[in-house]
Amino acid sequence: MDLNADLGEGFGVWQLGDDAALLDLVTSANVACGFHAGDAVTMRRVCAGAAERGVAVGAQVGYRDLVGFGRRPIAYEFAELRDEILYQLGALDGFCRVVGTRVRYLKPHGALYHAVAHDESQAAAVVAAVTEYDDQLPLLCPPGSVLAQLATGAGLRAVGEGFADRGYLPNGRLVPRGTPNALITDPELMARQAVRIATDRTVVAVDGSVIPCPAQSICLHGDTPGAVRCAELIRAVLVDAGVPLSPFT
Amino acid sequence: MDLNADLGEGFGVWQLGDDAALLDLVTSANVACGFHAGDAVTMRRVCAGAAERGVAVGAQVGYRDLVGFGRRPIAYEFAELRDEILYQLGALDGFCRVVGTRVRYLKPHGALYHAVAHDESQAAAVVAAVTEYDDQLPLLCPPGSVLAQLATGAGLRAVGEGFADRGYLPNGRLVPRGTPNALITDPELMARQAVRIATDRTVVAVDGSVIPCPAQSICLHGDTPGAVRCAELIRAVLVDAGVPLSPFT
Amino acid sequence: MDLNADLGEGFGVWQLGDDAALLDLVTSANVACGFHAGDAVTMRRVCAGAAERGVAVGAQVGYRDLVGFGRRPIAYEFAELRDEILYQLGALDGFCRVVGTRVRYLKPHGALYHAVAHDESQAAAVVAAVTEYDDQLPLLCPPGSVLAQLATGAGLRAVGEGFADRGYLPNGRLVPRGTPNALITDPELMARQAVRIATDRTVVAVDGSVIPCPAQSICLHGDTPGAVRCAELIRAVLVDAGVPLSPFT
Amino acid sequence: MDLNADLGEGFGVWQLGDDAALLDLVTSANVACGFHAGDAVTMRRVCAGAAERGVAVGAQVGYRDLVGFGRRPIAYEFAELRDEILYQLGALDGFCRVVGTRVRYLKPHGALYHAVAHDESQAAAVVAAVTEYDDQLPLLCPPGSVLAQLATGAGLRAVGEGFADRGYLPNGRLVPRGTPNALITDPELMARQAVRIATDRTVVAVDGSVIPCPAQSICLHGDTPGAVRCAELIRAVLVDAGVPLSPFT
Repeated sequence: MDLNADLGEGFGVWQLGDDAALLDLVTSANVACGFHAGDAVTMRRVCAGAAERGVAVGAQVGYRDLVGFGRRPIAYEFAELRDEILYQLGALDGFCRVVGTRVRYLKPHGALYHAVAHDESQAAAVVAAVTEYDDQLPLLCPPGSVLAQLATGAGLRAVGEGFADRGYLPNGRLVPRGTPNALITDPELMARQAVRIATDRTVVAVDGSVIPCPAQSICLHGDTPGAVRCAELIRAVLVDAGVPLSPFT
Repeated sequence: MDLNADLGEGFGVWQLGDDAALLDLVTSANVACGFHAGDAVTMRRVCAGAAERGVAVGAQVGYRDLVGFGRRPIAYEFAELRDEILYQLGALDGFCRVVGTRVRYLKPHGALYHAVAHDESQAAAVVAAVTEYDDQLPLLCPPGSVLAQLATGAGLRAVGEGFADRGYLPNGRLVPRGTPNALITDPELMARQAVRIATDRTVVAVDGSVIPCPAQSICLHGDTPGAVRCAELIRAVLVDAGVPLSPFT
Repeated sequence: MDLNADLGEGFGVWQLGDDAALLDLVTSANVACGFHAGDAVTMRRVCAGAAERGVAVGAQVGYRDLVGFGRRPIAYEFAELRDEILYQLGALDGFCRVVGTRVRYLKPHGALYHAVAHDESQAAAVVAAVTEYDDQLPLLCPPGSVLAQLATGAGLRAVGEGFADRGYLPNGRLVPRGTPNALITDPELMARQAVRIATDRTVVAVDGSVIPCPAQSICLHGDTPGAVRCAELIRAVLVDAGVPLSPFT
Repeated sequence: MDLNADLGEGFGVWQLGDDAALLDLVTSANVACGFHAGDAVTMRRVCAGAAERGVAVGAQVGYRDLVGFGRRPIAYEFAELRDEILYQLGALDGFCRVVGTRVRYLKPHGALYHAVAHDESQAAAVVAAVTEYDDQLPLLCPPGSVLAQLATGAGLRAVGEGFADRGYLPNGRLVPRGTPNALITDPELMARQAVRIATDRTVVAVDGSVIPCPAQSICLHGDTPGAVRCAELIRAVLVDAGVPLSPFT
C-alpha cells in the first residue's frame, strides 16, 4: 500500500502543514507546484527531502489562484488548463532532476480535483497534459471519476486513492463534507478503516454494508498537529498489520 | 552568426512585440518563462513556432515581477534566485519537450541581465542553476560580464552578444542609455554595424576607433513596427553579405 | 445620454486600448482597479485625465485574475467577493481624491458582469459592497439583470446600458456572442442604433420588431483602432442629432 | 505611550501571527494592505476588530512582493512607489470607512522600512503619497531616518518608535540584526527597557550609557507564541508602572 499526502503547500514566509513530519510517514509526496501554493525554494527542498527518503514525488497541480489556495472553481478553457498543467509539471520536474529523481505521478489539487470528477473538458485537459508530457506517468485520481475513465481510455494508468478519515456512501462515493458522517474523527476508527482498505480493499459504508474500495494509495493529512498524529497512527497500524508500504509507482 | 530576440513577452490578453514576425527572422528565441512575462499558452505557442522553424529556444529568465516587467533591481538571496531560475528553466523545458525540442540556452532578462554584469552573488546563482540543470547549456551573456567570467570558470559556455543598434565605448562596453550616442537609429548604420560584427568581429566605437566585438549572436528587437523593419533589414544585409545564419548552440 | 468605456486596462508595460483617445470621447470612464487589469500608475493617470475633462470615474471591478483578464468564471464566496470589491473601490477612490474627484459609480467587469446577470450570491455581494461603501453610488448594470433587481430592492440606483454594436433579441437581451447577428460591424448601422437608443430609448431587434431599450448610457469600445473610429463616429452622430452628452451620475 | 504591532499579515489560507491576541494588547494596529501580505477578507476583519476595541488602524504599506513578504529591497521609481502606496492607503481606508473608522497613520513595512531610513527617493515617495492623500496622517518611522526628516520638512508629523526587544548603539541606532546584542531575549530585560522608554524616554545602550529614546510608540511582535507572551508581559509591566496606554494619533 502507498501513503500519499500534500506537501510543500507554503508560500514564502507562510507555512502550511508539517512537511518534515509527513516526509517521514508517506511513500508518495504530492508536491505543490507554485500555482495554488509552493514557491521555488520550498519545491526544491521538498523534492530533495523526498529523494533522500525514497519517497516518490508527484506533481500536485492546481488552479492559478494563490489567494484562494486553488479551492475556488474556475472555468478554464481546455488549452489554458492543459498548458498551465504542463507548466507546473515541467517546473517540478526540473527540481526533481536537480535532486536526482523525476516526477513520478500527477494528482490534481483542490477545486481541480473536484472538477475532474465530473467535468469532461477539465479532465480531458489533465489527460492531454500527461499524455503529451510523459504517458508513463500515472494519475492519482478521485475513484470513479471522469478523469479516471478518460485517463484509462487514453492508455494512462489511473490510480485510485482511499481515505481513512472519510465516511463512504454505499455507492462507493465519499459522504459530502458538511453532512453527517463525512469525517471520521476517532483515531481508532480511522486506523481500522486504513487497515481494511490496505488488507481487504473494502470499507464499511455509513449504512453498515461492506463495499469495495479499490484504492492503491491512502491519503494522509498533515496540516494540523492532530492530523500528523493520526497519520503516524495510521502508518503504525499498517506496519503492525504487516502491510508493506511502498510507492504505487 | 546567430540572431536572437526576446519572444513570448505577452501575458494573457496583453501582447508585446510581434512574435510571429520575429520567429521568421531569428535563429535563437529568448522565450519569457512566466516570471516577468509569458503565460503558459504563449510559452507553448512560441516553443512550437520555434521548433517548426528550427529556431533554438532559450530560457529568458527574469525576476518575479510582472508589474515591473522584470526591469526593477531586486535584491535576491542566492538560493531564492537559483531556485526561481530552475523553476523557469524546468517550466520552459517542459513545453519544449512537448513540441519536440529542448531548451538550448539561457539568457537573463532585464534587471537580472544588468545585475549579472557586476553582482557576484546573482551571477553565481545563474551559474549554479545552469550547472545543476544541465551543464551543457550555454549562457547568452553581457560580454565582459561577471556572469561570463563565472560561467567560464565553472566550465559552462558563455556566449557574447553584440548589438546593431547600440553605440560602443572604446573599452567595449555599451554607451549607457540616456547618454548621447547610446542608440543607433539610422537603419543604414545599424546594418553596417551588424555586418561588421558578423564578418570582422569588430565595431567602430563612438570615438572612431575600431575595437573587437567577440559576439556570437546579434540581438534584434521587435516590440515596435519600426523595430521589426530594422530586424528584417539587418537579416537581409547579413544574408546579402554571405553571412551564414544559424543558432550558436 | 452618457457614453461609457473601459479604461486603464493595461498592466505595467502592457497596454490595452487607447485611453487617451477614449477619454476625449466618453462622459463616464470605467477604470480598472488592479485585479483583472490596471496598475497603480495607470489608475492614477486615467483618474487625473478624467478629472481634467469632467469625465465621471467609475470603479470597473473584476475578479482577481490577471492572466485571465477577469473573463473566466470563478466561484467566489459571498464575503470574499464583497470584500475584494470593497478593496478595489477604496483603492480607486484614493486616486480620485488625490486628483480632486471621487468614484461616481461602479460597473462589474468581464465574468463578473456576466455572473451578476443571473447569480444571486454574486449580485448580492456587489450590492452589499456598494451599500456599505456609499449607498449613493449608482451601479452600471446589464439591463434586466439580477444585479439590477437586487440593487433597486436595496435602494441603490441601477443604471442600464445599451450597445450600439450588438444585436438585440425581441425579449430585450443581447444576441449571444458567437451566434449570427451578435455583432453589428457596419458603422452606419451602429450609428443609427446609437441615435435610436439616445432619442427613442428603443432598438430594432433582429426580427425587425422595435423594442424598448431603457438605457441611460451607451457602451463604447476602444481596444482596436477600428473601435476608436467607431466610437468617434457614434459620438459625432449623437452630437449631430442634438443629443446632449453628460455623465449619468 | 502607544503600543503598535503588525497585523493582518496572512494571505488566503496562510496565517501569520495571532491577530486576535495582539488586538487585545496594542493601541495601534499596523494592518498589511495586500502587497506584501493581507487579503481583502483579512483586512476587513482586522479593521473591524480594531474599530471595536478602539485600536487605531495604520496602513502598513509594503513592496508588491508576496513571495518575498516585502522584505527584499526593490529599486522602485518615485512615481511607482508613490502610487502603489496611494493604492494601498485607499484600499485600507475603504475597509476602515465600512467598519466606522479611518486610517489614522502610515507605517512602512520590511524592506521599505529599511529603505526609507536612508533612500531619499523612496522616502520622498512615501511623503508625497501621504501629503497627497491626507496631510494630517502621521508617519510611524524609524527614528532618525531620512523619512522622519523629509516628513517633518513637508509639514507631516513623524512619530518615532522604540523597541523593547532590540539592543541600541550609543548613537541611538539599533544594533544590526546578526551581530551580538541585536536581540534582547530575556523577558525581564525587555520589560525593563519598555518601562524605561515609556517613563524616561531613554534606553541603556550596549556600552552601558543611558541615551535618549524619543519614542511615542513601542513596537510589539506577535508572530510566535513566545512573542505574544512577551507582548503580554510588556503591556502588563507598563500598566503596573502606571503608564497610560493610548494611540499616539
